[in-house]
Amino acid sequence: MPMYRLDMAYDGTDFHGYGIQPGVRTVQGQLEKALARQIGDVVTVVAGRTDRGVHASGQVVCFSHPEDIDADRVVRSLNRQLGDEIAVFDLRMVDDDFHARFSATARAYRYQILNRPVQDPMRSRTSWHVPDPLDVEAMDGAAAILVGSHDFASFCRRVSGKSTVRQVLWAGWRRVDDVIELSIGANSFCHQMVRSIVMVSVDIGRGRLDMSQAKAILNAEDRTQGRGVAPPRGLSLVGVGYSGEPIEPPEWITETP
Amino acid sequence: MPMYRLDMAYDGTDFHGYGIQPGVRTVQGQLEKALARQIGDVVTVVAGRTDRGVHASGQVVCFSHPEDIDADRVVRSLNRQLGDEIAVFDLRMVDDDFHARFSATARAYRYQILNRPVQDPMRSRTSWHVPDPLDVEAMDGAAAILVGSHDFASFCRRVSGKSTVRQVLWAGWRRVDDVIELSIGANSFCHQMVRSIVMVSVDIGRGRLDMSQAKAILNAEDRTQGRGVAPPRGLSLVGVGYSGEPIEPPEWITETP
Repeated sequence: MPMYRLDMAYDGTDFHGYGIQPGVRTVQGQLEKALARQIGDVVTVVAGRTDRGVHASGQVVCFSHPEDIDADRVVRSLNRQLGDEIAVFDLRMVDDDFHARFSATARAYRYQILNRPVQDPMRSRTSWHVPDPLDVEAMDGAAAILVGSHDFASFCRRVSGKSTVRQVLWAGWRRVDDVIELSIGANSFCHQMVRSIVMVSVDIGRGRLDMSQAKAILNAEDRTQGRGVAPPRGLSLVGVGYSGEPIEPPEWITETP
Repeated sequence: MPMYRLDMAYDGTDFHGYGIQPGVRTVQGQLEKALARQIGDVVTVVAGRTDRGVHASGQVVCFSHPEDIDADRVVRSLNRQLGDEIAVFDLRMVDDDFHARFSATARAYRYQILNRPVQDPMRSRTSWHVPDPLDVEAMDGAAAILVGSHDFASFCRRVSGKSTVRQVLWAGWRRVDDVIELSIGANSFCHQMVRSIVMVSVDIGRGRLDMSQAKAILNAEDRTQGRGVAPPRGLSLVGVGYSGEPIEPPEWITETP
């Protein structure tokens, strides 16, 4: 049966997360409802299940469907139905063995912090407001600790029996005017990993943790050594890489050991 | 009685406009309710009453109050109460004869259009999505027509007995990646003036109107010759100028005859 790949973006603010749950409004629920009207019932598989309030600018979904789909028409219809919170960029037939999640070789996330004294209402849905001054150079320097293969147990919500070893491909912080942002890529991420890294990074930026303490937190491989979880609003899944279609770090990321 | 000036920003999406109206949620209503808890009932006067769905990053409000106000404390309390949709930047005592509206000598607005094939959910609240290619140079060239004193009746919702003559100080369009934006400053604006200018500009950008036709629309001084009103979501009041505190055009605006 032909397999289709769909690329999409969404503002996660007013959804109860990506994955379908009974009785609440989810991204997957809206998407599958809209797809059903166009091509009948399908079950979609997503590359990265995002938590409640987390956004995506480069999410990937796949589903199999017995018929040939007029992709342009379906994309137009989906965008009309889905409103402004979800946007479908592309829909195309792919190899039968493509799997949005298991074929993915890398994911990239961005986390935005609005770092100025007062909130900006126009950016409050997509960034975490931290009014205290943050030392971005220190945060960027410490991010280098993460690169490579590590057991990220200190930064992951534990799922019993599942490994928390991940390979981080790049990680860096930069400031652009009053926004500071983390770009991080990995083969995959465990649950709440990016938001947990953000909390430790912010403590570094505030001068409450130094590089060796951050290293000790990582090496402890113990969730209780972490610093909690940053709010979802600053987080966005920006891309998913597949063999043959890898994702590159943004140009401003210079050090990738 | 001492006069106070308050500087604020808001995301207008989920408000029924700035001005208080019975039974609906307005920016002024939320602000005055929050102020009442801090310093008792006050009546605020605003520099630019924005329509439903219009935003502000540099709105100015004034009110008189019999007592000395601990401005820092009140700003902190207001920001806690008002949530993420409204942000108060500054509160300070000003001359007794200051009037947020009548003392203003200039206002500046920005209008943002997301100009790419597909909507971006993260920017859908703050920009109008126009998928067709737009010729920004043509739009910017035609904007020069507006500068100076003109009767903007073709671009204003008529209010009987009120003049529609305004002095536009600068106006220009530019593209930044997939966003094109209008920056416009004037001594004041009549109702729906910026959004009406945007519609004519977009028709120029689409090649449906040329410079001489745009000039003819302005010269007609007749609302029925206009091209309607662009959606409020792209519009933001970015600043208000007072004598002694003028507002300048952004650096990228080069021609101001």
